[in-house]
Amino acid sequence: MNKLQDLQLRISDAVDKLNLPESPDTLYEPVSYILSLGGKRMRPALLLMACDLFGGDVEAAMAPAVAIEVFHNFTLMHDDIMDKAPLRRGKTTVHERWGHNAGILSGDAMLVLSYELMMQVEDGLLRTVLDIFNKTALGVCEGQQLDMDFEQLGDVGIDEYLEMIRLKTSVLLGGALKIGALIGGAEMKDAELLNHFGEYLGIAFQLQDDILDVYGDPDKFGKQVGGDILSNKKTYLLIKALELADGSQKDELEHWIAFKEFDNNQKVAAVTQIYDSLGIRQHAEQAMETYADKAFAALDALNLPEEHKQYLRNFADGLLVREN
Amino acid sequence: MNKLQDLQLRISDAVDKLNLPESPDTLYEPVSYILSLGGKRMRPALLLMACDLFGGDVEAAMAPAVAIEVFHNFTLMHDDIMDKAPLRRGKTTVHERWGHNAGILSGDAMLVLSYELMMQVEDGLLRTVLDIFNKTALGVCEGQQLDMDFEQLGDVGIDEYLEMIRLKTSVLLGGALKIGALIGGAEMKDAELLNHFGEYLGIAFQLQDDILDVYGDPDKFGKQVGGDILSNKKTYLLIKALELADGSQKDELEHWIAFKEFDNNQKVAAVTQIYDSLGIRQHAEQAMETYADKAFAALDALNLPEEHKQYLRNFADGLLVREN
Repeated sequence: MNKLQDLQLRISDAVDKLNLPESPDTLYEPVSYILSLGGKRMRPALLLMACDLFGGDVEAAMAPAVAIEVFHNFTLMHDDIMDKAPLRRGKTTVHERWGHNAGILSGDAMLVLSYELMMQVEDGLLRTVLDIFNKTALGVCEGQQLDMDFEQLGDVGIDEYLEMIRLKTSVLLGGALKIGALIGGAEMKDAELLNHFGEYLGIAFQLQDDILDVYGDPDKFGKQVGGDILSNKKTYLLIKALELADGSQKDELEHWIAFKEFDNNQKVAAVTQIYDSLGIRQHAEQAMETYADKAFAALDALNLPEEHKQYLRNFADGLLVREN
Repeated sequence: MNKLQDLQLRISDAVDKLNLPESPDTLYEPVSYILSLGGKRMRPALLLMACDLFGGDVEAAMAPAVAIEVFHNFTLMHDDIMDKAPLRRGKTTVHERWGHNAGILSGDAMLVLSYELMMQVEDGLLRTVLDIFNKTALGVCEGQQLDMDFEQLGDVGIDEYLEMIRLKTSVLLGGALKIGALIGGAEMKDAELLNHFGEYLGIAFQLQDDILDVYGDPDKFGKQVGGDILSNKKTYLLIKALELADGSQKDELEHWIAFKEFDNNQKVAAVTQIYDSLGIRQHAEQAMETYADKAFAALDALNLPEEHKQYLRNFADGLLVREN
């Protein structure tokens, strides 16, 4: 087994060496730029890891892994336009630097490039791999759409929220693992179990992110605590709180949501207090545990040597820090 | 041989019956909308025609033909955002009706859907067809980028212009014909000749469009005569005129280009007069004939019954009305 860090390094190297067309440079320069901003290369590394777990040749999975990274960065390029984000990984976003049109069109080219890369599998796997990739790509678009819809909606249910985060963040993890497993020689049944493992783990990880935004240690979390509260982001915590709050609590919560001018610390403290009184943290941790358990159950059912399963368990434990 | 009009009708029918996912409707409603705006369905009909010419089953080419139409409409959806166009085929554009973000994301979903449809070919053709489709799709992105670049550039050469229109409009025609021919059972050599036929014909058609904008009969042309002149669009005519004009003519042309406030009729008349004095129409018609000749030469080399070649000649003659 290769170490995940080694796989991440190999992906970074392959991304750096990616042979993009040279002309028109106005089309391909933003592509090189966003890919050069780095990131953990987690999704493609997971694809390689899945291939490796089933005894496959990691090199044979390198182009599809890079495809996943190019696809992921295509979604970031377009999402940044939609979210009007000025920065990505501390650097100017593509649309801020080159304009909206460049962001749209270079993103489109990246989606095509990701198919070109994903096709670099043996003939016997081509249709299967592309079917998974299509489904994954469409799921990611659907998730982003739901996320935007929810910003406009007053009332979002917990199940809708979970489906949104599944589509927006988890299907790509699951898809990457499934494709990697198949390239590595896995049976479809095992590839699907690994897919479930990835999807459930992704949902658990996103729920953890929601929790840490409010209850995380700012030094470890690396983000401003309460950022989601300040922006009224419809996280698991807020949705659950709106569901559970009774008359006066609900009024107070809705007051803070509607309030345009407020002291940041005051708003974070007040909303956190409502969360505390409703036991929202426990609800969210319970949900996170439920999905983590589902992920581990999928893993248990996998036809893999115990040592390899342990590797995946360690990986999952590393992602989900269950005590803060 | 099926008539082209019949093939267009069958495509329209297949597009109408396209089974889109239902949810989220905010993602797929703009997709249904733009596909319902109609259009001549020329590109997918050409794919079916190419299949038919080589004795293939048109039904077997239906999904890839619809893929071409979905792809084409994806480019329209994104181009309309980039061009800030309020109308498409007389109806409100997607981004005007649902917002920019919907236009971006529904367009992305359409590109994925076009791959899903394009994959509906037999296994033996899958990789070949998708390789052509990737190359075509990337070419269209490159053409759109060059078109946007040229708007900002003072100096564009005739060769650059011809390459831009080849990429922006012709490669999709050529790609559609090539894919259709292969599905119909053509040898690669013949599929490539048909591809060349489509690309050259597309360039000739675009040059004709440039000419008709200035010299066309407004009743037949269906657009405002001189629209390109009023918007300073860098067409073959303007680029050639800037290349050929001597001192005082060049000054006058640049004066009209720089002029912000002008009487429309006066500007069109003045620029047309410069074109006339430089023989620009003849230059443009000569270029158009050159590409039409290349298209017919590709056709002559095709391994097809004379009757089928005549069908393609008639089709080309119908597109290129050589006297106005």
